[in-house]
Amino acid sequence: MPEFFTLVSPDDARTRFLEHIKPLGDVEEVETSDALGRVTAEDITSPQVLPEFRRSTVDGYAVRASDTYGASESLPAYLKLVGEVPMGRSTDITLSTGELALVHTGGMIPEGASAVVMIENTQKTGDAEVEVRKPVAEGENVINVGEDIQPGDLILRAGHVIRAQDMGGLLAVGITGIRMARQPRVAIYASGDEVIPPAFATEPGQVRDINSYNVDTLVRQAGGIPMRLGILPDNFDEMLRQAQVAISEKHADMMVFSAGSSVSVRDVTADVFQRLGSPGVLVHGVATKPGKPTILAVGDGRPLMGLPGNPVSAFVQFMMLGMAVIYRMQGAEEPRHWPIRAKLTTNVASVAGREDWLPTKLIERDGELYADPIFFKSNLIFSLVQADGLLKIPLNKAGLEAGEMVEVRTL
Amino acid sequence: MPEFFTLVSPDDARTRFLEHIKPLGDVEEVETSDALGRVTAEDITSPQVLPEFRRSTVDGYAVRASDTYGASESLPAYLKLVGEVPMGRSTDITLSTGELALVHTGGMIPEGASAVVMIENTQKTGDAEVEVRKPVAEGENVINVGEDIQPGDLILRAGHVIRAQDMGGLLAVGITGIRMARQPRVAIYASGDEVIPPAFATEPGQVRDINSYNVDTLVRQAGGIPMRLGILPDNFDEMLRQAQVAISEKHADMMVFSAGSSVSVRDVTADVFQRLGSPGVLVHGVATKPGKPTILAVGDGRPLMGLPGNPVSAFVQFMMLGMAVIYRMQGAEEPRHWPIRAKLTTNVASVAGREDWLPTKLIERDGELYADPIFFKSNLIFSLVQADGLLKIPLNKAGLEAGEMVEVRTL
Repeated sequence: MPEFFTLVSPDDARTRFLEHIKPLGDVEEVETSDALGRVTAEDITSPQVLPEFRRSTVDGYAVRASDTYGASESLPAYLKLVGEVPMGRSTDITLSTGELALVHTGGMIPEGASAVVMIENTQKTGDAEVEVRKPVAEGENVINVGEDIQPGDLILRAGHVIRAQDMGGLLAVGITGIRMARQPRVAIYASGDEVIPPAFATEPGQVRDINSYNVDTLVRQAGGIPMRLGILPDNFDEMLRQAQVAISEKHADMMVFSAGSSVSVRDVTADVFQRLGSPGVLVHGVATKPGKPTILAVGDGRPLMGLPGNPVSAFVQFMMLGMAVIYRMQGAEEPRHWPIRAKLTTNVASVAGREDWLPTKLIERDGELYADPIFFKSNLIFSLVQADGLLKIPLNKAGLEAGEMVEVRTL
Repeated sequence: MPEFFTLVSPDDARTRFLEHIKPLGDVEEVETSDALGRVTAEDITSPQVLPEFRRSTVDGYAVRASDTYGASESLPAYLKLVGEVPMGRSTDITLSTGELALVHTGGMIPEGASAVVMIENTQKTGDAEVEVRKPVAEGENVINVGEDIQPGDLILRAGHVIRAQDMGGLLAVGITGIRMARQPRVAIYASGDEVIPPAFATEPGQVRDINSYNVDTLVRQAGGIPMRLGILPDNFDEMLRQAQVAISEKHADMMVFSAGSSVSVRDVTADVFQRLGSPGVLVHGVATKPGKPTILAVGDGRPLMGLPGNPVSAFVQFMMLGMAVIYRMQGAEEPRHWPIRAKLTTNVASVAGREDWLPTKLIERDGELYADPIFFKSNLIFSLVQADGLLKIPLNKAGLEAGEMVEVRTL
């Protein structure tokens, strides 16, 4: 029997799905230098102050600022050179009034000094005499102890997705290992009697499995561990058996079935999900294009996704819903995708009550950014290959007009 | 002697640097499923047509469109059901006038059929009779052979950086291996007498090496192979010897010295670069903040970068210049960073003739996006940790005003 969907809006679908998903809660120690894209399991605070000593931000001479007041090209101040601050070591120089010391960028500011005159504004006039041609204010060209961070300051919240600069910050205060959320293990199956592995030659009526590979990549990008477990026949018993194997032997935390394209396979997928624990199927059909026949379920705490067979639908739905779930299992919010705003080149039709994501090129012309939609008759994979991003047509719009500012999510 | 820079504008610096860098030219065969972020070594064209057979985009009945003309709820067309198209196999059904055949989404359209009626617009009225309540046009709900791609069509140009959807497109036409540019090997050294490894406890005057790790991550993100080769003393002979080892034994294609902060170390770095082949140092000082004391050189075709010791400077300069070079060595243009446009929350001062990149938060309020700069006294690493992106203050601007639309590059 054909099953007619009760369509749910994309936002509702996401909310219903996410509210049933709890962070895995497992924690593992990871080296900071391997932590890119991983999620912090707890708040991280600084164990120390940074900088640990007063540092110069320029090459120049450490001085008492008051000794330079009024100094100019025509009336320089003459100060006594008492030494040079070595790099990488502390200095025992203590400046008195009328004295200065050579200091390099990053070097320690000696006791008694309150500022650094840039070398460009000085002239050495004798073995132990330097002419200062420009005054400096108190604290000028000096970073004080603790200006970067203080002991106990929050560095990163729990649930933060580590970026390159975060690793830098952690290493700067000597944090070389971090407690991270365990990476969710995601079992990925393709199903459908028409689906064959990509390396195979096609017979009439067959198509290659590309969804497993696309989902694999997106899982990895969200910090999960993808497990591509192959192609299943369109058969309830075999799909259920394999799903149970994925849980018991592969320790899957999440399962994705890229269902074949036909409704019968989708129904079998939903039936399998109903057998994997409560609450079972939450959403069967999302008011979105591409991706309407998406199935969202949770069984015994495990997110279960049934993706449409169409590769564009599967890609977009996993991007919109699946990646958020993988972040949530790690205790994180998905990092924001800041929208690219561009001017639409042409009218685009849609249907009110449906959210559309249209493959789009981005074009820069005369300093202005344009979104130029790619019109394919159906959701064909090469429309995504040609695209720079996806143009959003909001749920409440029946279309968009040429010249409108639109939002594009880059691909 | 202090050396005073001849500052070059960031665009000029980039042009001068890139024009001396040739693609490595080496090619290796890579499995398509492992190719994310790699660069194509040649144009890739489709070996086949896609789809290979006429497919249905819906669940329904394949018909001759003309048999449905005029059909309506009140006056349906009654057609004879002659069979069902199996999934994954060809069908030997040939439709004659007055006949239809059950077909699933993705299934093959039988000979003689020209459209598919959606199942929702039909009713089975007997074992071999179906009522059609809505007409379909020729070709409706059908994807024709070759609508996605034709044999010989260009899939990806040489020099393309592979994204998830590109892998999908390649696998869809059975391309499971691709000829890719070899990944450049990038030797990374830190230098400076004050620099120690991150795992070490600091003594007064010392700072931890974080630049090696930040550069490592950025190299990897651009498709290169980073080799962190440790911390060097501020000594010409030792730095030159190590650089030569990196070339002869580590087969480095590029070299990055994160120089200590002081001018003496920078000068030593430039001297070392002059000894590694012509043309030698191209740029010593870029009109940008952070990152002014950057050194760009090329020796025997190898890009050589001397980064400032300041971690924010090093990060931003490697992001702006180093990553482009790694892409170029692979024969690629760096993928576009589409700017995020946001409204500035506050006035920001700069200096005309200098391009600034200011760590910035992005804030969404009432549907509008705001750039909220982070003001630190100097370029401290935790300003980057707190930032969502870098706000650009163009070369020709002496500052920006609150309320202006600005461009932010996300971090």
